[in-house]
Amino acid sequence: MSASTLQAIHNVRLATMQGDGYGLIEQGLIVFNASGIQYAGEHLSHAEGGPDLSQVELLDGGGGLVTPGLIDCHTHLVWAGSRANEFAQRLHGASYADIAAQGGGIAATVAATRAASLEQIIALSQPRLEALMREGVTTIEIKSGYGLSYEHERKQLLAARALADNNPVSVVTTLLAAHALPPEYQQQPDAYIDLIVEQILPQIAAEGLADAVDAFCEKVGFTTVQTERVFAAAKALNLPVKLHAEQLSNQAGSQLAARYQALSCDHLEYLDEAGVAAMAASNTVAVLLPGAYYFLREQQLPPLALLREYQVPIALATDANPGTSPIFSLLLMLQMGATLFRLTPEECLRGVTVAAAQALGLHDRGQLKAGMRADLCWWDCADPATLSYQFGLQQLRGCWHQGQRR
Amino acid sequence: MSASTLQAIHNVRLATMQGDGYGLIEQGLIVFNASGIQYAGEHLSHAEGGPDLSQVELLDGGGGLVTPGLIDCHTHLVWAGSRANEFAQRLHGASYADIAAQGGGIAATVAATRAASLEQIIALSQPRLEALMREGVTTIEIKSGYGLSYEHERKQLLAARALADNNPVSVVTTLLAAHALPPEYQQQPDAYIDLIVEQILPQIAAEGLADAVDAFCEKVGFTTVQTERVFAAAKALNLPVKLHAEQLSNQAGSQLAARYQALSCDHLEYLDEAGVAAMAASNTVAVLLPGAYYFLREQQLPPLALLREYQVPIALATDANPGTSPIFSLLLMLQMGATLFRLTPEECLRGVTVAAAQALGLHDRGQLKAGMRADLCWWDCADPATLSYQFGLQQLRGCWHQGQRR
Ligand SMILES: [Zn+2]
Ligand SMILES: [Zn+2]
Repeated sequence: MSASTLQAIHNVRLATMQGDGYGLIEQGLIVFNASGIQYAGEHLSHAEGGPDLSQVELLDGGGGLVTPGLIDCHTHLVWAGSRANEFAQRLHGASYADIAAQGGGIAATVAATRAASLEQIIALSQPRLEALMREGVTTIEIKSGYGLSYEHERKQLLAARALADNNPVSVVTTLLAAHALPPEYQQQPDAYIDLIVEQILPQIAAEGLADAVDAFCEKVGFTTVQTERVFAAAKALNLPVKLHAEQLSNQAGSQLAARYQALSCDHLEYLDEAGVAAMAASNTVAVLLPGAYYFLREQQLPPLALLREYQVPIALATDANPGTSPIFSLLLMLQMGATLFRLTPEECLRGVTVAAAQALGLHDRGQLKAGMRADLCWWDCADPATLSYQFGLQQLRGCWHQGQRR
Repeated sequence: MSASTLQAIHNVRLATMQGDGYGLIEQGLIVFNASGIQYAGEHLSHAEGGPDLSQVELLDGGGGLVTPGLIDCHTHLVWAGSRANEFAQRLHGASYADIAAQGGGIAATVAATRAASLEQIIALSQPRLEALMREGVTTIEIKSGYGLSYEHERKQLLAARALADNNPVSVVTTLLAAHALPPEYQQQPDAYIDLIVEQILPQIAAEGLADAVDAFCEKVGFTTVQTERVFAAAKALNLPVKLHAEQLSNQAGSQLAARYQALSCDHLEYLDEAGVAAMAASNTVAVLLPGAYYFLREQQLPPLALLREYQVPIALATDANPGTSPIFSLLLMLQMGATLFRLTPEECLRGVTVAAAQALGLHDRGQLKAGMRADLCWWDCADPATLSYQFGLQQLRGCWHQGQRR
């Protein structure tokens, strides 16, 4: 089948994700090729005004469901080293301080990532990406943040770009140099911020390796003053920003991020109403990360009622990372989003499609609509709520990335 | 390769599960065929006293890990109908009472299971079983309990037996007629117990359809007096018993079960020290079900410290069912067992191997030892803690059921 051959799926429900909920179309028809979706709507005959299917490769959807390809809008996928050993140590009674004293925690991942070659990082990350792709992920955001120097942040971003070259998936990269203090800058956070804004960020931007810039604003991360320096440098380079905000405490990072028209603020367990209002005004997406909430056994829920009241779009992502969310399943995030955060199944599915696309600043995907990219998932359940309700069944019957079945 | 051809895996670590922890053997060698494991130990040369490999099909384990095949010792796999819709309704604000008033909850599953043909139940259950098998499950327990009459409990157990016939997996069946009150016995629990002990149980036992008998002892289930009538009838038929005990409240069901030498007591969030002591004395396994704990957002943890102090074996299972654990992943139970219950990775892996075998009264599996069944998993991680730590990667490189690779 050539790239431009028109394909169609009929005998399916379409979850177009238009409007407020699923945007469901019963008796749906979707026609697409590598150029994008040509038609997504009711299955009318050609005589009734539906598309002409005479030259189209037609697939019987078997009464299943077609959704947009899934989008994982927050991951730290490219790292080296394993933290299984310290996971076991903690369960045997070691404290975080014990682990840190022996060079564990994020320092261990930074050391292993720095020690690894580009090729090693690509190879280690490939099965992580495959796990997400098996569930229907067609676009993934990947952050740096374990290199913490120009050379090693760049290596991580090159690995992310290589994953895109090697796989039928779209990758959006984010520079997260302001993730933690590198060992050579302990006790010198402002000097490390100098390095980021004067060297790392401009060089990475000049090479086109980052599509956005992120930071970790937290008592154990960077202050809002330090974060703002990173944001200002990003804005000067025309790079959009986003923020790890209010995860463990309320630093008002989301208000700062909103002033910089951040694409998203992520985590947000401690977000307050002022932060919600600021995000709503700046059209900033709330990216919720139930895997980290679960893994850290947090008790503080993100302010769902306020987010709904202010109509802040809510996205869900894996936060896949070795320290706080070693979980490579976006469908599990739907289950956890519903179970732990009490998101509705509509909110969960929007969270990995239309809202996730917005969180990445992408306007060409996340909905089924003529003109959008033909990134599609075909599921063997008719009720979209099933995707949030049950976990572990192989429900994905087909997946297309830019019109190509993979 | 004929069934009797000897196969071997070398260049692996073996998690034999002998002793207290993993029973790890570095530089391991395992030799097996359809008759069972012939050798599991250090890779010594033939001259040094190791097995003669000259006639053996030898597989290079690539530095990975071999464990016993996984055992899911508590599932309700065979049902019809979907509860996705009521899951969505609850997240939109409906109460459990609202759902029950419209015939939802377990009543909906009973109605759908009764309405379904044997063939339909088999077909619906097949993908659930496949999900578990993909993760390395080689033995699975399957309960009835959604039929609640002789005809329909039997149909569920026949479906479980058919799954065993149709798949390279071993199935252990459990009659759980005392799961809930059928609609025709509302307000007449004792009359339903009469039906179980006088008709359902003897007939099912005569047909050899049940390997054990279970009950749900709870305020919202059956009393200890009613449960004991079921246990006495089972014992008279030489069927071992087990119990859904102390899940939502402490009914001292575990002490009753221990008096009947129960194979296991399951759930156990509200188990007290007297119950733990009774279980220890009767060698009854504690089967923990973190999926149900998670799905119901329980806060009360099972008494891990007491279970350890009294050396009660701890198993982990999916509890796969449509109402409280619609989760078809035993590896996720390892992750949740560690994260939510703070089990060590050793306890988690023992929970789905050696302890799970004991929970099913099976002495021929769950460890790597000469003479045991050749039910094996070969993983691409060297550290067994990885299996509990990270979730979602396809780490299973090979799986053998009774010596046959599947
Ligand atoms: Zn993150
Ligand atoms: Zn159960």
